[in-house]
Amino acid sequence: MKNTFSEELFLTNETGRMLYHKYAEHLPIIDYHCHLQPSEILENKEFEDLGEMWLRGDHYKWRCMRAFGIEEKYITGDASYYEKYMRFAEILPQLAGNPIYIWCALELKRYFDIDEPLTAENAQAIYDRTCALIAEKHMTRRWCMEHSDVRLVSTTEDPTDDLACHKALQKENLSTRVITAFRPDKAMFCANSDFDAYLGKLARAAEQPIHSFSDLLTALEKRLQYFQQVTGTTVSDDGIPYFAWADYTQEQVEAIFAKARRGEALTRQEIDQYQSAFLFEMGRIYNRNNYVMQLHIGTYLDANTSRVQAIGQSTGFDCTDDATAVKSVGTLLDRLTAVGELPKTILYPLDGTKIEAWAVLAAGFCDSGTRAKVQLGAPWWFNDQAFGIQRQFEACANLYPVSLSVGMLTDSRSFLSYPRHELYRRVLCSYLGSLVERGEYFSGEAELKKLIENVCFDNVNQFFGFQVQR
Amino acid sequence: MKNTFSEELFLTNETGRMLYHKYAEHLPIIDYHCHLQPSEILENKEFEDLGEMWLRGDHYKWRCMRAFGIEEKYITGDASYYEKYMRFAEILPQLAGNPIYIWCALELKRYFDIDEPLTAENAQAIYDRTCALIAEKHMTRRWCMEHSDVRLVSTTEDPTDDLACHKALQKENLSTRVITAFRPDKAMFCANSDFDAYLGKLARAAEQPIHSFSDLLTALEKRLQYFQQVTGTTVSDDGIPYFAWADYTQEQVEAIFAKARRGEALTRQEIDQYQSAFLFEMGRIYNRNNYVMQLHIGTYLDANTSRVQAIGQSTGFDCTDDATAVKSVGTLLDRLTAVGELPKTILYPLDGTKIEAWAVLAAGFCDSGTRAKVQLGAPWWFNDQAFGIQRQFEACANLYPVSLSVGMLTDSRSFLSYPRHELYRRVLCSYLGSLVERGEYFSGEAELKKLIENVCFDNVNQFFGFQVQR
Amino acid sequence: MKNTFSEELFLTNETGRMLYHKYAEHLPIIDYHCHLQPSEILENKEFEDLGEMWLRGDHYKWRCMRAFGIEEKYITGDASYYEKYMRFAEILPQLAGNPIYIWCALELKRYFDIDEPLTAENAQAIYDRTCALIAEKHMTRRWCMEHSDVRLVSTTEDPTDDLACHKALQKENLSTRVITAFRPDKAMFCANSDFDAYLGKLARAAEQPIHSFSDLLTALEKRLQYFQQVTGTTVSDDGIPYFAWADYTQEQVEAIFAKARRGEALTRQEIDQYQSAFLFEMGRIYNRNNYVMQLHIGTYLDANTSRVQAIGQSTGFDCTDDATAVKSVGTLLDRLTAVGELPKTILYPLDGTKIEAWAVLAAGFCDSGTRAKVQLGAPWWFNDQAFGIQRQFEACANLYPVSLSVGMLTDSRSFLSYPRHELYRRVLCSYLGSLVERGEYFSGEAELKKLIENVCFDNVNQFFGFQVQR
Repeated sequence: MKNTFSEELFLTNETGRMLYHKYAEHLPIIDYHCHLQPSEILENKEFEDLGEMWLRGDHYKWRCMRAFGIEEKYITGDASYYEKYMRFAEILPQLAGNPIYIWCALELKRYFDIDEPLTAENAQAIYDRTCALIAEKHMTRRWCMEHSDVRLVSTTEDPTDDLACHKALQKENLSTRVITAFRPDKAMFCANSDFDAYLGKLARAAEQPIHSFSDLLTALEKRLQYFQQVTGTTVSDDGIPYFAWADYTQEQVEAIFAKARRGEALTRQEIDQYQSAFLFEMGRIYNRNNYVMQLHIGTYLDANTSRVQAIGQSTGFDCTDDATAVKSVGTLLDRLTAVGELPKTILYPLDGTKIEAWAVLAAGFCDSGTRAKVQLGAPWWFNDQAFGIQRQFEACANLYPVSLSVGMLTDSRSFLSYPRHELYRRVLCSYLGSLVERGEYFSGEAELKKLIENVCFDNVNQFFGFQVQR
Repeated sequence: MKNTFSEELFLTNETGRMLYHKYAEHLPIIDYHCHLQPSEILENKEFEDLGEMWLRGDHYKWRCMRAFGIEEKYITGDASYYEKYMRFAEILPQLAGNPIYIWCALELKRYFDIDEPLTAENAQAIYDRTCALIAEKHMTRRWCMEHSDVRLVSTTEDPTDDLACHKALQKENLSTRVITAFRPDKAMFCANSDFDAYLGKLARAAEQPIHSFSDLLTALEKRLQYFQQVTGTTVSDDGIPYFAWADYTQEQVEAIFAKARRGEALTRQEIDQYQSAFLFEMGRIYNRNNYVMQLHIGTYLDANTSRVQAIGQSTGFDCTDDATAVKSVGTLLDRLTAVGELPKTILYPLDGTKIEAWAVLAAGFCDSGTRAKVQLGAPWWFNDQAFGIQRQFEACANLYPVSLSVGMLTDSRSFLSYPRHELYRRVLCSYLGSLVERGEYFSGEAELKKLIENVCFDNVNQFFGFQVQR
Repeated sequence: MKNTFSEELFLTNETGRMLYHKYAEHLPIIDYHCHLQPSEILENKEFEDLGEMWLRGDHYKWRCMRAFGIEEKYITGDASYYEKYMRFAEILPQLAGNPIYIWCALELKRYFDIDEPLTAENAQAIYDRTCALIAEKHMTRRWCMEHSDVRLVSTTEDPTDDLACHKALQKENLSTRVITAFRPDKAMFCANSDFDAYLGKLARAAEQPIHSFSDLLTALEKRLQYFQQVTGTTVSDDGIPYFAWADYTQEQVEAIFAKARRGEALTRQEIDQYQSAFLFEMGRIYNRNNYVMQLHIGTYLDANTSRVQAIGQSTGFDCTDDATAVKSVGTLLDRLTAVGELPKTILYPLDGTKIEAWAVLAAGFCDSGTRAKVQLGAPWWFNDQAFGIQRQFEACANLYPVSLSVGMLTDSRSFLSYPRHELYRRVLCSYLGSLVERGEYFSGEAELKKLIENVCFDNVNQFFGFQVQR
């Protein structure tokens, strides 16, 4: 039985192997959506150890460790990264079929040239070896990005952020361009208890009093333009939990806004109306400022409320909502189209089992003049693995040309996650190769080269207007 | 890398290849649901060029061209078919994995014996060659049907249609029998602004004043009997966007009907009640007239309203609705069963990701005395490709015997779409072959021959009572 | 073409074959959820014939026979088992891809050593041969369990059951331990017409007057403790058709309970509130009595009401509901977690197409200290076949470690259904083998051995605390 890392990983056919090694493998990376901390990029510290690299902030691994019944102390608690790493190493060999298994394997191989599998037995030896390499090669945050040939990353910030780190980063001579995405979610969550306080903070950041919904939009647009001014970004990031489109009038929305600011309880209908208005107006703002609207649809945030209260948000207690209707987002796109203000849009549905209806929706709002104006995003979060990627190719190529996709992103909090682009490219080439070998594609190598280069680099560069050199 | 059309397309195993070439390949075709214009069959003109053949009325290709950002002028606009064809040829090589790619390949091979892939480079040469062949072989509408050995087609007409073309076609000596399906959707869309006007037209066609819901049913049944009298049809076609069963009384339905005729706004509950009553009563009418009820479930019609207003309905702006509950259709079937008036029924859910719950539903309403009384239809519209067909075999064979299926239809507006039956048969044989090769089926060749002949020809012939000769 | 049973069934790769034959094949079976009649185990009669073995109580086969249009007489009617068997044998060869086909093949092979496929032609010969073997080997109910090396079975009983058979069984020296699951559904169906009568029966069984919802819980807990006292069980079984969480107060629930007992019509909101309260309180009861909560979610029971009235419940007229939101069950788990009373829980969603959102949910409620505290159950009912099992491995390994699963159960009414464990193990090993062969797993054979033994035997033994010897 094979027991070392294989360079033919995921490549199940000859044509796919050729395509990957010849065309995809060496393309640089644009990571247009992630959750890296700009302060970390700025400080650019060397990593402490593999424990920090793997287990700091990584809620994917945390929820997996909880499933094995490991004590919280060794997950998010006060144990050292070394101790956490040792606990994690014990369960890793039992993660067959899980993306964490293959991500770790790829990260050990690509950053440390380790071929053998990590086990409880060799955990100490691999720990020591990686510590030595971190020190020897001065593995810092930026080292990881450079090592993986990352040409651009986009972090994600709240409109109230002063972008101090980003400003500082613009002055440094980085080989990786760093921009940020504009994420106005907190202004959408009108039923949250901190809504009023948040708007106060936003008003100060924007130097714009917020007495109305209309003021709020003005303030957000000022911040969005500031984001663009500082980093040159064209990236938005909207996170949408359960969403139901509800028609509204301006008067209704202003009344709901006032009620929300006073902290009064809102009905479901009022929340739906407010969020419909909010997303419609943000769409218009994105459009006139040449941003790409990125809608992350169907999260079920903070499902385990008491654990979130104890440990914090984004620590592994979010789930998938399966109740948002395609028609709700469809109505948003339709209304924006009707007023001629639909921005370029990428849809990221979290419920990957319904991906096809979303692909169909995206195609229905494409329009002449813009290539892939509305498109489906890369398989995201719980769908970010070979199965989810392969499904999206197989299911959606039928409904929306794969060749138009802006390709992979990491959405990650980790500086070691760039091999996920490698994984995506391997699955892409294997998929294309299998089409060729079954007789389903026979237009030749030059066309496939073009397709691969488009999906892995050129499409995203062009769609967002990044103008990064390849 | 292979770069010519392969006769082993989709056939991934030896047994599958044998089954296809020995049993499936040469069976004639019954296309029991399509959207061909009977006037075109009657006039039987030679095609102008490959552009007309491919791009006239084909909203599959149109929405694909829009995704590439091609100007509407070259899609539905006033450019010539030649110009449209040239634009389409540019994008075709980038449609890896899309059914349009493989449909075009099959159509070039089967109708023009062209083996090489169409590219921007050879587009002119292939255009010229196909033009010459169209002229040389006098490729007319009927020529396509005869060339593909089509024994029956069923078009789709509105109850108000006078069937003049169909009457004329009955008198011609066609090798393909032409009938029509009865599609009463417009009488179900009680909230449409043209509902009253439509009922006026229907009343005139049926020579039956329509003052009540009950009158409406009488008028529809008269027209349905007329359809049967003219073409001998047993085919219905009901298109159901979002549907929620709602209980009702006769009095309520009459009141809603009256309100709808006066053009007053209806509540969601009233629309649901009206549509529930309408489908229930149509089911009874189908049953007593020996029609097969075909329910097309879960369309999201005219999603992009402003583009539909500009360009027209059925031009590529329809999407998939994911909100219709299985239980709503289940209640319809249950009520019809309870009164002993459930007709033979075929369910076509558009949301292919939920296909299994529908297969289970169909099986729950089968009854002794009729073979496959309620069954799942062929993968339809957005599901009409190798992936959708394969999924239906794999997922639904588990829930409903595949051997009972009435098999493939084109649902197409194109006279060149018969190779979709070939595609279906190839996937079927490949699926059966893979069962054999994995040890999951070992009852021998004679049983598989029977299954293939049933699914590809005999089942549909018997189920609808077509009595076409094989 | 192969036409005998293959010992390499479902094993599509070398590594998988090795893993199955070396590690999985010979493990004993724990069948922790089934619908066997304890009276049948107690009486332990020899089977009459293969007809009785296959067609008594098996609604899977019944609904399949109805799809073929076979007369009800030969399904659930008064025809003899011989006649029913002969009808069934006629359709079996046309069940390619259906689990019934492969279950029958496995049952013929494992219990009667028959290699050839059953057909209409050899149906009589196989009937005679199996009759002879039944007589020769004295094939009784217990013989089947012993022959398949079943170490424990859990039947399912209503709280009102006196467990007379189970008591008697405890005194016998069985090689298979027999326990029962506690299934309180009838106390949850507050809108059923027999609710009041049922509570009367329950009050008598529990020797506890039931004047309030609170009394009801006391009575149920007494019976649950009785079930544990008699059989040592830790197994619950909750069947949940459409479920929507609705907040409630104690006063509201008591008022709804009183209304329900008086037989007054309840609103949908009242039913939802009652069921929310019921499941929350049952969760607390399970937790403090160390039971595992098993939630079977999304049944659409008695869909075909008139046939159920004529033939009975559980005779093949149940379907799948697709409307229960993940968030509803999520709220139940969240509320139980918040009060620190979440029991070990297994989720069995019937709509297998949405399995991923449920896997994500389960992971979100795991907690340190318990291995796999909330987990996804084996593919169930309509998902119990190679396709459903493979999908669950492929889709859910990404979201929840497969190695933590408590593995397969039969959920069956048949004493011949143990080869379904074999089927599951074959698909598991084939899945693991394919990971190895694609380079996705390379931690070696010892880890895979551990994984296989855990999933096939040790996990379930430990999770339920059965303490059965392997």
